[in-house]
This record gives sequence, C-alpha cells and structure tokens, in this order.
Amino acid sequence: MDALPLDNQPLMSDDFAQRARELIEAGRTIDSRGWVPATSGNFSARLADGRIAITVSGRHKGRLTEADIMLVDADGRSLDGQTPSAETRLHTALYRRYPDAGAVLHPHSPGSTLLSRLRTNSVVLEQYELLKALKGINTHECRIRIPIFPNDQDIPRLANRIDHWMDEHGDIHAYIIASHGFYTWGDNVQEALRQVEALEFLFDIESRLHGAPTA
Amino acid sequence: MDALPLDNQPLMSDDFAQRARELIEAGRTIDSRGWVPATSGNFSARLADGRIAITVSGRHKGRLTEADIMLVDADGRSLDGQTPSAETRLHTALYRRYPDAGAVLHPHSPGSTLLSRLRTNSVVLEQYELLKALKGINTHECRIRIPIFPNDQDIPRLANRIDHWMDEHGDIHAYIIASHGFYTWGDNVQEALRQVEALEFLFDIESRLHGAPTA
Amino acid sequence: MDALPLDNQPLMSDDFAQRARELIEAGRTIDSRGWVPATSGNFSARLADGRIAITVSGRHKGRLTEADIMLVDADGRSLDGQTPSAETRLHTALYRRYPDAGAVLHPHSPGSTLLSRLRTNSVVLEQYELLKALKGINTHECRIRIPIFPNDQDIPRLANRIDHWMDEHGDIHAYIIASHGFYTWGDNVQEALRQVEALEFLFDIESRLHGAPTA
Amino acid sequence: MDALPLDNQPLMSDDFAQRARELIEAGRTIDSRGWVPATSGNFSARLADGRIAITVSGRHKGRLTEADIMLVDADGRSLDGQTPSAETRLHTALYRRYPDAGAVLHPHSPGSTLLSRLRTNSVVLEQYELLKALKGINTHECRIRIPIFPNDQDIPRLANRIDHWMDEHGDIHAYIIASHGFYTWGDNVQEALRQVEALEFLFDIESRLHGAPTA
Repeated sequence: MDALPLDNQPLMSDDFAQRARELIEAGRTIDSRGWVPATSGNFSARLADGRIAITVSGRHKGRLTEADIMLVDADGRSLDGQTPSAETRLHTALYRRYPDAGAVLHPHSPGSTLLSRLRTNSVVLEQYELLKALKGINTHECRIRIPIFPNDQDIPRLANRIDHWMDEHGDIHAYIIASHGFYTWGDNVQEALRQVEALEFLFDIESRLHGAPTA
Repeated sequence: MDALPLDNQPLMSDDFAQRARELIEAGRTIDSRGWVPATSGNFSARLADGRIAITVSGRHKGRLTEADIMLVDADGRSLDGQTPSAETRLHTALYRRYPDAGAVLHPHSPGSTLLSRLRTNSVVLEQYELLKALKGINTHECRIRIPIFPNDQDIPRLANRIDHWMDEHGDIHAYIIASHGFYTWGDNVQEALRQVEALEFLFDIESRLHGAPTA
Repeated sequence: MDALPLDNQPLMSDDFAQRARELIEAGRTIDSRGWVPATSGNFSARLADGRIAITVSGRHKGRLTEADIMLVDADGRSLDGQTPSAETRLHTALYRRYPDAGAVLHPHSPGSTLLSRLRTNSVVLEQYELLKALKGINTHECRIRIPIFPNDQDIPRLANRIDHWMDEHGDIHAYIIASHGFYTWGDNVQEALRQVEALEFLFDIESRLHGAPTA
Repeated sequence: MDALPLDNQPLMSDDFAQRARELIEAGRTIDSRGWVPATSGNFSARLADGRIAITVSGRHKGRLTEADIMLVDADGRSLDGQTPSAETRLHTALYRRYPDAGAVLHPHSPGSTLLSRLRTNSVVLEQYELLKALKGINTHECRIRIPIFPNDQDIPRLANRIDHWMDEHGDIHAYIIASHGFYTWGDNVQEALRQVEALEFLFDIESRLHGAPTA
C-alpha cells in the first residue's frame, strides 16, 4: 500500500491498540498498589509513527478502557477531538528529549508524595540493588539524584523549568513534582513500569527511614 | 404514562437498580483498601425522584448485594420496612443542604481515624495536587479545612451540630467524626468515590508526616 | 428418624459442610489482609450437636479446602483420625465458657503482634466507634481491656491460665497472646470475623499512635 | 525403560513442569504482597535428578510463565541456552550445602531492605511464635540470628563469603543481603514459601519496633 501522508493515515491502528492495551494493564497494576488515587496520574506510549497514545483527562487510571486512551501529535495537540491530560506537555517534552523513550508513566504515589514533603530539591538514592532496575545502571554502588520540582498549574512553564534543569544538570531517570507524584519513562510500557515499581519501593523505604519525628 | 403520585410509584425502579449497582461496586473498591472494616461505614445515592437508596443497617460494605440497599424518603424514613443505617440522618442532612449532591459515602478508614486521634477540631490540607479531586478546586495552591466533630451516638444531635457548624463556617468538602471515619459527597457515586480516594490518601500522608512521636 | 447415639452419627453432615465453607471463606479474607502468614492462625466453628469443626494442624489458612477442616469433640479429641491444631484446647475452653459462641478465630496479625511487643498485660481501647462491632457494645463511650497473656508452648497450661484470669476478671471480647496474634469469638463465623476486622483495625491504629520512638 | 545417561535425558520432564508451576504460583503470591518489585528476586527448585529449575534473568516474578523458568546443572551452568539469574551461584551454593533443600526463594521485600539499612551484621529474632515456621524450630523460646551480608555485584565472591561465614558460624535459616532482600530455603517450594511469609512478617514488625527516630 502506498504511504499515506501523515494527516490522512487512519487514526487508530494495530500499534495504537497494542499500546492502549499495555497502558490499560499498567494502570490496573499501578492502581492495585494505591498509586493513582482518584483520577490522578497519567500514562502515555509513543507509536512507531511518532504520534502519542495518552490517557484522556479525568479518567480513573485503574479502570481504563480503550475509550480512555486518545491520540496526540508530538506537540501534544489532540488528533481525535478529545481532551488529553492537562500534563500532556510534560510527556511530549520527555519524548523530545529522549528519542528512545517509548512510554512515560506518571503515578501519584504515597512514597513520592510523602518524601516531597520531607525534602526540598531532591531525593538521593544510593547503595540499593533496585537501582539496577533503572536504565543503564548495573551496580548498586552508585548514587543517583531524583530532582523535586515545585508543583505548578502552568504546565508549559513547569515543562520549561524541567527542560532547563535537565539542560543544566544532565540526564535523569525520573523526577518528582512536589506533592504531586513522579514521572519516569522507558523504551516501552513494560520498562517504564519496571522503573515505577522500583522507584516507589525506594521512595517508600526512604520515607520510612528518614520520616518525620515530631508531631 | 401518566405521572403517579409519589406515594403510589413502584418502590424499585431502573434508577434504583443502577444506583444500587454503583454503591455495591463502590463498596467493593473501598473494602479492598481496608476502609470499611467489620460492618462500619454506610453509603447512599439520591434517585431522580428525591428518594434515597441507602445501605441497610449492619451489613458488610465490601460484600453488598442489592438486598443490602434499601429506600428511604428525604427525611430518612424507611419506605420498604427495612432498617436503614443509624446514621441515615447525616446523609439526609447533606442532601438537604447540597441540592446537587447525588451520593454520600462514609468510609471508616485508618487515615481519618488516626488523624482524629492526633488532632482536635480540624485537619488542614494544603499544597496537595490531589486537592483538585475535590469539587470546585482547580489548583493545589489552596488550603482547605476538614472539621472534626466529636462522635455522638445521638445522631439527630450530631446532625444538628454539623448543620449548625456549616451554617456558621460555610461549605466544606468532607468532615471527620472523631474515631469514626469521614463523610464526603458528590454529584454521583463516582464523584463521591473520587473524593474518598483523594481524601484518605491525604489523611494517610498527613498522619505519617505528623504522627505520634511518643510512646 | 430415631436419634442415633452421638458416637454412631455420621461424621460429616450438611452442618459440617456449611461451617467448613464459612471457615474456608473467612481464611481467604483474613489471609488477603496478611493476618495469617505461613501456617499461623487457626479457626473453628461449633456444630449444632456440639462437635467442633477446626482447622487441621499446619495448613495455610488462606488456601484451605474442606480437607483442611476436621472434627473434634467438645474436649478437643480428634473424631476423624486427623491431628487438629496444637491450640485446639484454647478453642474448646472458649466454647465451654461461652455457650452462645459458634465460632472462634485466631489470626496472627501484625497489629496485635506489634502491640504485644510494646505493651505488657493489656491493651486498652476507648472512644472508638468500631468498639460497637464487639458483641454487646452499643456506644463508643466505653473503655475495654484486651488482656495480653505470655506465650506458652504448653497449651493446657496456657488454657488454664486464661480460664483462671477470666474467672477472676470477668468476660472479655478477645485476648492477645504475646508475639502470637489474638483470639476472638462470636455467635457464628460471620460475627467472629466482624470482630477480627474491627480489632485488628484498632490494634493497627493503636500501634501507630503509640509506637516505638527509639531505635 | 532403561536409564538414560544424564546428558541424554529429555530436558523437560513432569518433574520440571510441576516445579515450574509451583515457582510460578509462589511468584504470584510473593508479588501480591509487593515483595518482588520490578524484576527483582529470583526463585529455584531442585529436581529429583539434581538439575535445578530457576527463573530466567530479568523477568517479572509476579507474572511468570513456564517460559520464564529454565534449567541449570548443579554448578549453575545453563542446560537450555537461556541465561539464568545473575545470582544463580547463590542458589547452587545453598543446594550444595543443604542436601535436603528442594527450593530456594529470594524475595526483595521492604521489611528486609529497611532492616538492613537500620542494622549492621545481623538481625536477631526472639520470642516470636512465628519462628516455629522455620525448619527445626518448635518453640518461640529461642533466639535466632539472621546475618546481613554486604551487597556485592561479584556473585562468586559473595557466594564464597557467605559459604565461609556458614562454615564458621554454622547453619542458618536465611540471610539478608544489604539493601537487596533476603534468601531462604526449604525441602520444597511450599516450605520455602512458608519461611518467606514468616520472615518478612517478622522483618516488618522489627523495622516498625526499632525504626528510625531521626529525620
């Protein structure tokens, strides 16, 4: 079949359907742990053609169906008339920076939320075997810094701030938004989910190790 | 079909059946988190005709069937001979005050219980992204107060006390009864459940942030 | 049908099968919370004829089948050749003392275990709405004492000690064995399970309220 | 049928299929508790002929299929071309030391991870009824020591260190690797799983009893 120009291609494809199924399943797993309360969190996956499958705004992430996953272009513009998550710009900025990234997951988990009330600027994780679940790390003998950004309802401004920080400080595996959960990404949904599980485990341990001693 | 006078209409209806299904499903979700131990908690939904579907007294909220949901009128009087929850008056007072409220959920959760032993009068929640799960809030940059009322076996007296407090202090999104869980409400069961998930997440975080330092 | 002498009656009956199903289901619920780790805990129900259905020694309580429930007489003697739980004597002593008791449940839960390392002699629970889940209590305005007995591998001696304590101090709703979970009972399996859920909720709250402040 | 020489025998057998099913099921149970986040942990079982069924490197332990279980010989060499867990040598060292061991389970659990950040050298467990879930223990009136070894990416070196420690200090029921979960073993998968449940319960209690007092 001749190639169709991008704007004529069929909106939904096998690629979309497969990515949607993976996001739905990841949502069930993440919700079963209590990491996407209410309608918090949002998830996306990049298709082979560069378009992005992302959760529709305001849906519960533990009970997603295919109708809750929509398509945006690389700039986050809706391709199907639905409204994507308000935080779509955070996803597209990550896909632009990381060409290999095939999925971005944003859980709103208790460990990351609690830690971000106990710390300013960043969380340091070191000497944990589970750090090896993060891309490119193959020993526990390392020390990584997860930056904490102040929450901001102005998402383009927040996206710029994060981009600027990464320009200055270099690559990271994840970031926390204060009192608002964390973002992580991977080559595909499965690898991003692996990082979600590892990071929230470590955030929980850190919050219990260095918790609040005073009432 | 001609309108029937209210007292002649069939007791059970499609509307009732649909609301009952939603309450049953909400109960399973809430119980799976451990937020309605024993036979604690109670749930209701308002029908289009003003009658209220509410859980029968003494049933386990995680294992509800349609037989565990009954009908009361706007004043909380049983319409089908069954005994509604002892706290029905707290539900009807909320429906009277909030004409848009279509559902009231009362979980008996660990976070709210624990916080009510650590605080007197109220819990303050501020700078949390999850506050946006509460009706009418669209930024984390706010500070809300959830009042804590002393528990009281005299439910009409407790209902009056709460009503009086709201007359004086204005609208709220939820209230805690000391050592007795919390109440929240929404336009429908789904929205009330969204508030339950957000609030208990925040109560849990707050109790861990400002927990008890002394044995 | 003429009455058969007790020792000639068929071992298994509809009554047994129904009680066994209830114990199996209670085990699944209790295990799903993490309250019967490994092969800890044991459960029983009294049949109409006075015999007792009780879990076989050494089985996992979250994965019971009917083959894991056996019959003992009122003195705890095996009626079917299988070996009942080593703690059967604690069950039979409770059935003897409480003629209305139809079920005894012994979870080995984290809250009760933790509290028994923090306290000596007893746990006091007061002003909790959930106390109303305990038989005969209809207001939160009360204060109950749950005794903690030292653990003992000599079960007849432990049973005697508990009996002696109750003779002296009067009726209780439950007791904790130090570092060994708790016992509670009810008119039937459902009511005993209601008490299990309420008590472990309260033990968890108490352990977090009055936890250990020093390393 | 005549005996086949070991190197000619069929790779897969009924024995392998049964052990694989048990490991898959144990993985689901362990993951449901949150004790094998990301792709952490690894599990094995010894077949009657001395070969070892072990999880393939890098798989999620809560979603194993038979394709995720492979065969190695007693020295940990792959028998089917797949790559076993990097920690296979820790498994084979345990099978060599304990001729009765039929299964080795390594969860990466929060309790053991947290405790290993709070303690150096070892964890002492005493006066817990659940100690009776460990092989050979029949009273709570004992005191066992679980050594904590420093984590090491050089697995042969770590295996030697552990072997040397056991030569010197004698038999143990389990060991912790710092910030890396724990290892335990049993006559079969069911008994090893019983020890996993008991130990993580106790590690969790200990970490809450003797937690971190300072921020």
